[in-house]
This record gives sequence, structure tokens and C-alpha cells, in this order.
Amino acid sequence: MVGAKLKVAVAGLGRMGARHAAHFYGLTPRAELVAASSPEQKELDLTQTNLPGVRTYLSYDEMLQEEIKHGLQAVVVSSATAVHAEQAIKAIKLGLHVLCEKPLSTNVEISQSVVTAYRESQKTHPNQKVICGFSRRFDASYRDAFEKMQAGLIGRPAVFRSQTCDKLDPSGFFVEYAKFSGGIFVDCSIHDIDLALWFFGEDSKVKTVSAVGITAVEPDLRKYNDRDNAVAVIEFFDGKIAQLYCSRMMAAGQEDTSEIIGTKGKLSINMQPMTNLVNIFESSGVRREIPAHYYGRFRDAFITEANEFTACCLDNTEPPMKLEGAVNAVRIGQALQESLITGKRIDFAENGERIVSEPKARL
Amino acid sequence: MVGAKLKVAVAGLGRMGARHAAHFYGLTPRAELVAASSPEQKELDLTQTNLPGVRTYLSYDEMLQEEIKHGLQAVVVSSATAVHAEQAIKAIKLGLHVLCEKPLSTNVEISQSVVTAYRESQKTHPNQKVICGFSRRFDASYRDAFEKMQAGLIGRPAVFRSQTCDKLDPSGFFVEYAKFSGGIFVDCSIHDIDLALWFFGEDSKVKTVSAVGITAVEPDLRKYNDRDNAVAVIEFFDGKIAQLYCSRMMAAGQEDTSEIIGTKGKLSINMQPMTNLVNIFESSGVRREIPAHYYGRFRDAFITEANEFTACCLDNTEPPMKLEGAVNAVRIGQALQESLITGKRIDFAENGERIVSEPKARL
Amino acid sequence: MVGAKLKVAVAGLGRMGARHAAHFYGLTPRAELVAASSPEQKELDLTQTNLPGVRTYLSYDEMLQEEIKHGLQAVVVSSATAVHAEQAIKAIKLGLHVLCEKPLSTNVEISQSVVTAYRESQKTHPNQKVICGFSRRFDASYRDAFEKMQAGLIGRPAVFRSQTCDKLDPSGFFVEYAKFSGGIFVDCSIHDIDLALWFFGEDSKVKTVSAVGITAVEPDLRKYNDRDNAVAVIEFFDGKIAQLYCSRMMAAGQEDTSEIIGTKGKLSINMQPMTNLVNIFESSGVRREIPAHYYGRFRDAFITEANEFTACCLDNTEPPMKLEGAVNAVRIGQALQESLITGKRIDFAENGERIVSEPKARL
Amino acid sequence: MVGAKLKVAVAGLGRMGARHAAHFYGLTPRAELVAASSPEQKELDLTQTNLPGVRTYLSYDEMLQEEIKHGLQAVVVSSATAVHAEQAIKAIKLGLHVLCEKPLSTNVEISQSVVTAYRESQKTHPNQKVICGFSRRFDASYRDAFEKMQAGLIGRPAVFRSQTCDKLDPSGFFVEYAKFSGGIFVDCSIHDIDLALWFFGEDSKVKTVSAVGITAVEPDLRKYNDRDNAVAVIEFFDGKIAQLYCSRMMAAGQEDTSEIIGTKGKLSINMQPMTNLVNIFESSGVRREIPAHYYGRFRDAFITEANEFTACCLDNTEPPMKLEGAVNAVRIGQALQESLITGKRIDFAENGERIVSEPKARL
Repeated sequence: MVGAKLKVAVAGLGRMGARHAAHFYGLTPRAELVAASSPEQKELDLTQTNLPGVRTYLSYDEMLQEEIKHGLQAVVVSSATAVHAEQAIKAIKLGLHVLCEKPLSTNVEISQSVVTAYRESQKTHPNQKVICGFSRRFDASYRDAFEKMQAGLIGRPAVFRSQTCDKLDPSGFFVEYAKFSGGIFVDCSIHDIDLALWFFGEDSKVKTVSAVGITAVEPDLRKYNDRDNAVAVIEFFDGKIAQLYCSRMMAAGQEDTSEIIGTKGKLSINMQPMTNLVNIFESSGVRREIPAHYYGRFRDAFITEANEFTACCLDNTEPPMKLEGAVNAVRIGQALQESLITGKRIDFAENGERIVSEPKARL
Repeated sequence: MVGAKLKVAVAGLGRMGARHAAHFYGLTPRAELVAASSPEQKELDLTQTNLPGVRTYLSYDEMLQEEIKHGLQAVVVSSATAVHAEQAIKAIKLGLHVLCEKPLSTNVEISQSVVTAYRESQKTHPNQKVICGFSRRFDASYRDAFEKMQAGLIGRPAVFRSQTCDKLDPSGFFVEYAKFSGGIFVDCSIHDIDLALWFFGEDSKVKTVSAVGITAVEPDLRKYNDRDNAVAVIEFFDGKIAQLYCSRMMAAGQEDTSEIIGTKGKLSINMQPMTNLVNIFESSGVRREIPAHYYGRFRDAFITEANEFTACCLDNTEPPMKLEGAVNAVRIGQALQESLITGKRIDFAENGERIVSEPKARL
Repeated sequence: MVGAKLKVAVAGLGRMGARHAAHFYGLTPRAELVAASSPEQKELDLTQTNLPGVRTYLSYDEMLQEEIKHGLQAVVVSSATAVHAEQAIKAIKLGLHVLCEKPLSTNVEISQSVVTAYRESQKTHPNQKVICGFSRRFDASYRDAFEKMQAGLIGRPAVFRSQTCDKLDPSGFFVEYAKFSGGIFVDCSIHDIDLALWFFGEDSKVKTVSAVGITAVEPDLRKYNDRDNAVAVIEFFDGKIAQLYCSRMMAAGQEDTSEIIGTKGKLSINMQPMTNLVNIFESSGVRREIPAHYYGRFRDAFITEANEFTACCLDNTEPPMKLEGAVNAVRIGQALQESLITGKRIDFAENGERIVSEPKARL
Repeated sequence: MVGAKLKVAVAGLGRMGARHAAHFYGLTPRAELVAASSPEQKELDLTQTNLPGVRTYLSYDEMLQEEIKHGLQAVVVSSATAVHAEQAIKAIKLGLHVLCEKPLSTNVEISQSVVTAYRESQKTHPNQKVICGFSRRFDASYRDAFEKMQAGLIGRPAVFRSQTCDKLDPSGFFVEYAKFSGGIFVDCSIHDIDLALWFFGEDSKVKTVSAVGITAVEPDLRKYNDRDNAVAVIEFFDGKIAQLYCSRMMAAGQEDTSEIIGTKGKLSINMQPMTNLVNIFESSGVRREIPAHYYGRFRDAFITEANEFTACCLDNTEPPMKLEGAVNAVRIGQALQESLITGKRIDFAENGERIVSEPKARL
């Protein structure tokens, strides 16, 4: 039937979950948000107020059980990272389409289990779609840069430089957050890693990763093997390099910038961050504001993500990226995090296996 | 009932009409696009394909007649400018809410007749909303600038400089368009005039207007008393000035920029036009692209407009601007157009009446 | 002899005079600053300290008389505007090269008398050079824009938009200054007028000028028939327009910007003013500083001016601009100033003569 | 005596040597360029034409011998890098002031020998000045950033990110150049290393260095153990990090940018490279040009360098940086180059000694 809408449920109604719910509720014409779950009654109440008509559940399992009867087709997993994989797998096994927030898990093996479940399920549900929501893939500027690169504007890409840098939060939030975040490379740089794989090609093979970090403002991060500023290098086997920077210490706001440098040119994205097109001329000079958080920068990308995920489920088209890439990104992020803590470079063979050198083994 | 949606019809499915229809169809959660009309069957067909479920009509009158039976609540008038007023008034008389594309008319008296109809209708439909769609009022950057000004950031505003400049179109389109557009000041600068009234205050009283123009690329515009580049000055009685520039000759794309200069600071909007956050580094230097047309710059504003119009109809809240302002803007635009052609400054008394000097009368 | 240096004297050692002296003393390899005069002993003392070896005089006339004996070749007139013409003429009559600060005079007839003296003197001193120092003509960015325009990059130039805007000075300085400045159009916009004549061609003929102004921060300026913000339009006979803005009220610093718009493109100069290449990221956003005064923006241009003036005297080459243009600029500036005060547009015939309409004559 | 000028000779009249000569000849008021040497007669001829009055020599030694009789006080060494140290030491031993182009040598020990000679010579010439010309130390933007950092604007500096990136030169020049340049880290990044030491403090102690590079456009660079793109990390003992990028592959021109990130803010320098203040609006968008070479970016800094070197010699004031820093920069650059080739991180003890681990020794 023309115009049938995709019936979607959202799992998790925290900050980003509530946004996903709102996007699917009101800004995704081909989708219908039918249900939402959260272990927090307060979040359910808020959802009922803001998104009237959506059925709410304290239990994710109950939501799946009930809604499947009403024709539920897709689930957006935006709960706590710790349960991403488990919830995704449950939905996958029911044959539902899944949009899972990044990362699938902070653990590579668990991330891989989502892919395994998906590929298994596809045998009986060949049209099933499961993607991991790397929002920047849906951002108009990144896409424009990618297309320009594809069109040959910069020759052959060789160096990718990228950063994910959060606004300084003096409340200590980042320390608490570090308990579960998987560390700054798995939490922040995973976006840059995913971008590197996108721009360099999904089949790019990592040769070495190394990272160095400091705690400039939050020494307590060390308790959780984390840092507040870190830099990294990823070498690929085909002679390409990614250079990363991540930070929790930006005074002015979110600074997520990237450069892709090729043999004939360079494309930069967001090297001059800005909230909007206003400039303020005052006695101290000319000032512009920049987004405080990633959502201020990437809101439109998340809405595009919702619409494109919906379209690819309804129209059975290819998703913009493969789920396997999400595991690869976690693998690299986790390796960087390990390098950050051990101070050792980590080497990989062309087959993707880690090379463990004798001397390192002694540690 | 919680969540009842505003039933909306769109009149006119040309370039901008089709966009309005799409916005109300899929990007305005609290609205339901129920119908659309156009004298062009092709446009109706396209609408049925793109927006399944919307009822289409070749006749605006028939649409009103039929849809009112199904509970139509609001009409978006985005047909040819020549019928804006007529269509708006018909809807107004039926007690419907109306969002009318700018300008109400290129003629002041006709524009005024819309206001008169509205104010009359309100006597029996006190909650009726009628607004003229000046999209920049809904643009995030203009709003941010306005709020900063209101918050005192630049002291007392004194000088407003603004431009509406279209991309060069060598096809001769602008000549054809000039037959009906009302002229460059009524078509383009009306936005800047509206902005001046917004930033300086709706009750600002015009003292003098004067304009000068040329035909640098389209001499044929003179047949229709129009120009392709023009500059203007509007003096207000409280010692404020607006300086305008409009053009049909921008090589790089749409350049709509504004500055509001106060006694303690300045706010600029879009002085560095850009399509997105990408910069291209190539052998000729660093380049960024800029939107080719106003929709590339103001798409988000139009969507906000749809959503806010819907909200103010449903919630019976005050619209963001008064309909009278739209007449005022046309009055000023038309006076500028006259000055452009006659080469004479036009003076107004504080009561808004035009001062006709003896010597000028002799010409 | 190879390497003989041009013997230069500077008249006037105020703010700009002292800078000229320093430029010719230490930053103009082919010149030798031999003498300087000022009616202020303090300024002479300062010069002797800062520029050892330079002979100083309280009397301009005495300086000329003495220095001519020692081979003086050129004079830089940077004294008070009121004596520019008189001092320039005295030097001209002695056959000396002259670089005179702008304006020659705030009065057209007096300005013209300098040209007359020069053309008379040239009969006996055919290699004599006299130029009026419009610094922007020597600015690298303006020159680059001019060359790009000359090379056809923007097609045929049609609209010139330019502003000279001073930093707000709450001390009341600008009121005092208005007594002698000739008014904001003669003092500030004269640069933009000169640029318009440069970009549009020296032989461009003015058709109309009109101006409007306000006193937003300095009502006392009205005592001297001046304003603190003003806008103007200059129409040329060949269908070109210049639109100007001048102000004494910029919060952030000097904002001198220009745009030259042609049938195929646009060149902008300094639309994003900046002091240097530093950006400051802090909690309120991203900030850059801008020059507080014109010298911060144009220092390099003044040094280039000194060097090129020197070269054209020594090598007997053509100066970069004709002296007649300086009179033309004052004529236009003065007309704008009159229009600003009378509220009347001023029309010119193609032969340059002013058209006095009957009605206007009656006022 | 008031106004006595510093008598300066320049050794080496290649591209940069000729510029130094011109700066000291005509743009350094307190200096007098008395002599210049070059093994190339053509360069001497050119110098005699361009800088009349300067005595020229084919032999550096002869120049020293002769000019010392005429009161030579200072030597600028801007010959081939291979003879920097030798020429500098000869001048030092004569008690002359020396401004030596960077690097002192591509070899640490040879670099150190210059310092040793200087400190020895100072025993008998306590006022002797010897500096290594790191031009960015004299750049207005870097200085402004440094002062703002010193003033506390960004809190405690923690991360320094910097790049020296040359314009792509398809002629193969960089391959030839690599024979003598010391490698990309010693040739390019040495500036960034010097800046890191400046911003973090001259006594910052390096803990580890590591580098990775590729040959994206010039595989022949590998013959000389060099790369055309490389990234590096320098860890300091006090918990600070420098992240570097260097390249010979920039399409648009020289891109030398830096960021200093502190606990309370960030300062960026030249993140939007530009030649001047002109923007070009054309059908492909908005474009600005950027300097093709470092001299386009740093010309003013070199002139300031000439003037400040002269002043510190004449006035016996402290030079802006210590000569020891130049050795330190080479040491770090050379270590990075080694890491780039071996693929091994290099560790240092707090006393500056290199830590050679057993496993690495086996390689």
C-alpha cells in the first residue's frame, strides 16, 4: 500500500533516546512511533506528555512482546551502552529492523555478537536492516565532502585528520561517565574512526595504532583508565594515515572537525565551528558562538538518519553502511584505548590479527 | 482530544507551493495536509505521487467548498502573487486560518483589503490567525540576532543594512518574472523592509524613501519599470536609517546578509554566506560553495514557519507578527519602486500620509 | 650616481605626521629623511629622540628655506588639514616633489588651487611629482582586487559598496574634530569615493549624489553640521552606482570594507576585519580582535606609499594616480555633506557642472 | 654615539639569503648592510644591482677577514644548511654577533658545537649575541597568542597542535632537496617543535617521540629516508603533548597553523590561511587565495627578526630566545625523523638521555 508507515519503537528515553523518539514521532513522515520503553517512569511520563499517543513500557522485553502483536517493524536502541547489544539482539531475533546507537558495545566480542545475530537472522529475514547510528554519516557537510572526494576533487586521499572534542564540563560529569563509556577513544574518537573507514574505504586494513593522553583537568579519570585529552595515529596497510585528537576540555563548545587530504587537494569540515550565521561585534572584538554539545552540531544529521533508516526498511534498499564497520570501529577504538594506557603501539597483520611481540608479551 | 492535528490545505503547487505542501505533509508533526490545489494537472499528479493521501483540486474554490465539510482548518496560500489576496480573503471569510506567502499583493490597497477582511472576520472568529509568511522571521540566525539586540547587547539600534541578492540567471528568467513581481523592491527587498520593521519596531514610522538602480545585465527589465541592481535608503522618524541593496546579479549564489548597528555594538547575519561547513583547498585557493537560491538558505526557516503557524492555530497563541506589517512592507516597497523609476525621493508625514510637494507635482 | 637617496622633509609631526616621518626615516630605503617641522616644540623633541640626525624646525617656511640649500627634494605634508594646501603650494612653487595627506583641503576651490599650482610649476619642472596620499591605493588587498577586476575576473564593474567606519570614541573627540574635519563624508568617505573613482575609472562622471545621516551617539555633532552615521548614494553617468556607509560608532574597531560587484562576479575586501591570524576560543565563543584604528589596518599601505612615492620621484615614473582625482573626491565628498545637511539630492550635468533646479533655489 | 648603525654582512645569497640581505639593506633602519658573500658570482652580481654599495665576496672567509678591518659587527648566516655551523662558528670566534638561519645543522652534535663555541667566546665577548632564526618567534600572530597565553587567557597550556605544510611541487624539487634537508621533521616540523618549546617553556623535557609517515606523491623520497606526509607526537614529562603534522602536498599553498589548548581556552593561529583580505565571489563559490610559500606568510616576521636582532646587538639586550633551544629542536626533530624511519618510539629520561631498551637494541 502506498504510504504505509514504518511502525517504530524506541528503547531508552534518556537524553538522546528522547531525541530519537521526537525525531521518529514528528520529523520522519514515513515512520510512526508507536511505542517507547525506559526503566525510568519519569521518562515515560514525559514521553506521554510530549508525544501523545505513543505507548510506553517500563520493560523493553514487554514492549517487544506486546508491540509485535500490533505490527511493530523496527526498534531504535538508544538505551545505556551496556545494554545496546542485548536489546539489539533481542529485536534482531524477532526479525525487526534495528537502528542501534553507537557503539554496539564498548567490547569488541559483544559488538561482534550483534553482527553474528544479524547475519544469522537474515537467513530467514532477508530484508531485515540493522545499522549502527554513526550520525556523521548523515551530516550534509560530511556527505558533501565525501561526494567531492569520490568525484576526484582531491585526487587520492592519503591523510585523514579528525577530532571529537567536547565542551569542558567542570561538574565532574566526565569522570562519572568514564566508568561506562569505554574510554575517550571508544566514546569520542569512534566517530573519527568510522569517518576514516568511510573516507578511506570500509575495507581499509589497520597496520598500527598508537595513542598518548593526559589528564589536564580531570586527574580522577585515571581511576577508570581514561584521559581528558588524547592524540592517536592509525596507520593503514595501503599507506594512509589517520591522525586523531579527542578532548573533554574545549572552552567554547563542541569542536568536531575533520580534514581529508589527498594528492591533489584537501577538504575540511567545520574548521570554523559556529552555532549559526550571527557574528557579534563588541568592544572586545568579533565573536561567534559555537554549539555547546554534539546535538547542536548534528541535530539535522540525526533527523536524516531517522528518515533514511525508515526509507531503507520500507523500500528494502541497501543501508548507507554495513554493520560490520561498527565492530571494526570499536576494535580500533579499543586498541587505541589500550595503547593510551599501556603506552605501547599495537600492530596488526594484514589479516586483521594482532601481532603480539615477544617483548610486549613479557609485560 | 490530545494531539488532534491541524487540517491544512495548500493553494498553489509551484516551486514554493510544493515545498510548503511537503513541509506540512511530513515535517510538521501537529499538522495534517489534507488537500492541495493547482490549476496545473501536472502539479496535482506530482503531489499525489509525492504526498500520497492528499486530495487534490484543480479549483481553489472547489477545494474550499469540499474540504470545509471535512473539517479543514487552515489554508496556506502559495499560488501566483496575483491571486494571493483573493484566495486569502476567501479563506478568511470562511473563518479559516491563513498562512499567505509574501507579498499579500504587489499593490498596497489590495494588500490592505486582506487585513480588512481579517479584522472583520475576527469579530465572529476571534481565534482566527492570518499571517504573511516572511520566512526570515523564522530563521534561527535572525532570531538569535533579534534576541541579542533585545537583550541590550548592541545598545540602541540605529542603522540597519540589509540585502537580498539573487544568483545571476542568464536565461532571461528575471525579465519574464518582472512582469508580475511588482519590481525588485517589492519582490526582493520586501524581506529587508520587513526585517527593518522587526528590528526597529513594528511601529517605526517612515519619513523618507529613496532609491536608485541600474540594469547592468538585463536592460530589458526597463520595459517593466524594473532594474537588476538597486540601492535604497529608508529614513525613520526616530532617527534610524535602513540602507538596502538588492540585485539579480550575484555570481556565486544567493547573498542575503544583514547588519544591525547599535550604539554599543553590531550584529551581522550571514556576512560570509556558505552552503555548509565544507571548505575546498585546491590549487586556486580555498573555496566554499554558497546556496544558489533562497530556499537553500532558508529551508529550515520555512519548516519552522509551518510548525509555528500550526502551533499558534491549535493553541490559540499570538502569531509572531501582525498582518498589518505586511501591508506596511508593501507600502514601503512600492514607494521605493516608484522612487527607483521617477528618481524622486518620497516623503511621508508622521501620520503615514505621503507629502506631495508642489514642484514634484508639476513634473 | 647609483643609490642616491631622495632627500625628504616632513611637515607636521602629529599622530600621522610622526608615522610618515618614521616610515621615511627607517622603512624607505631609497629615501633619507633630512628634516621635519612642527609648530609644537614637544613634537620636535620627540622626533630628535626617535629619529636621530633629522633636523627639526618650528617653522615650515624656515625649513623649506634652509633645506633647499642642502638639496631637499621632496616634502610630505601631514600637518593640520587647514594648512595642507598652503604648505603644498609653497613646496610646489619651489619645484619640490610633494606627497600631501588627504584631503588637499576640505574646500573644493582650495583643493583645486593646489592642482593649478602644480600644473603651472610643471611647465618649468616637468619631472615634478605631486600626489595626494590616499593610502588604500597602496594597500595590497585593494590592489589585488583591482588587478583581478582589470583582468576581467568579475566582468564589467557596476556597483561599488564601501564603508569607512571608525571605532566608537566616547571621549567626545569626534565632536571637537568635526570643527575642522569637513564633515564625515569629507573626512571618512573620501577614501571610499576615491576607491570608487579608482575602480570605476578616474574619468567617471557623477550624475547625482544624495546622503542621509543621524546622530546616534553624538548629538553635539549637529552644531558643526555633522553626523555620526551616514549613508550615501553616488550615481554615475555610465550606469554605475556607489553605495557608501560611514560611521563613528563601531564597537569592535575600525571597519573599512569594500565590495566591487560586476556582471560576472564580486570582489570583497576586508569583509571579515581582523587584527591578525589569532582566534580566541573561550567560554563565550570564538573571538578575534580587529584593529582599533585605520593605522592598524593600513600601516603597510602607508609604508608602500612612502616607498613608491620615493621611487617615482627618483626614477621619474608616473605616479599611481593623478592629482586631479583628489579634487574630484573632495567635490563629491562636499556635495554629499551638503546633501546630508539639506536633505536634497544634488544633480550634475555630464560636463560636471551642478544643476540647480528652480524649486531647490527657492529654499 | 646616537644612531650608529650595526654593520652587518650576509653569508649566502640564495633565495632566503637574498631576502635577508634586502631586509638588512632597506628595512632595518638601525643596520647597515656592508657586505655579502656567495660562492655564486651570479648572485653577487644580482646583489650589486639590487643593493648598490654592498661589497660582495665569493669567499666567506675573505669577507670576514676584510670586513673585520672595516668594523664589521654582525653576520647573518643564510647559506646552505651544510655550512651553517662552520660559518657561524668562524664568525663567533671573531667575536661577531650572529643570526644563523635554522637549523644550526641537521646534526645534533654539530648544532651543539655552535653553542659551545658561542658560550666559550662569550667569556671574552660578554655582549656577543648569537641566535638561530626561528622566524615564527617574530610573527605578530604567534606573539599575540603567546602573550595572551602568558596573560592567563587559556589557563594552563596542555596540548599544542601544529603543522608546517608546503605547497605541492610536482617538479620533484622536494626529492632533490631531501638529500640535504635532514628530513621533513628537521626541515619543516622544526618550526613546530620550536613553537612547542616556546609555548610550553624552554625547559620542557621530552619523554617520548614517535612518528609515522607516508609517501603519497613522491615515492622517491624513500631513497633519502624521507616522507612527504608525516605525523608525530611529542610527550613531555609535565603531562603536556604536542601533536604535529607536516606535508609537502598542500594543493592550495603554504598551510602553517597552530593551536595551543589550555585548561580554560584555546588559541589558534592561522587556521584560515589567506594571502590577503580579498574574497572572490564567482560561479563556483567564494574563494580566497593563500600564500604559495612560507615567505608569503612570514615576510613581516623576517623583517621584525632583522630589526630585533639589530636592536639586541646595538643595545646589548637579551635576545628573544636562547641558542640552546635551537639544539634542542634539532635533537627532537632528528629523533622524530629516526622514529619515522624505524617505526619505533624513542624514549628519553628526565635528564634528557635517551633510553635504549633491550628489545629495540636487538633490531
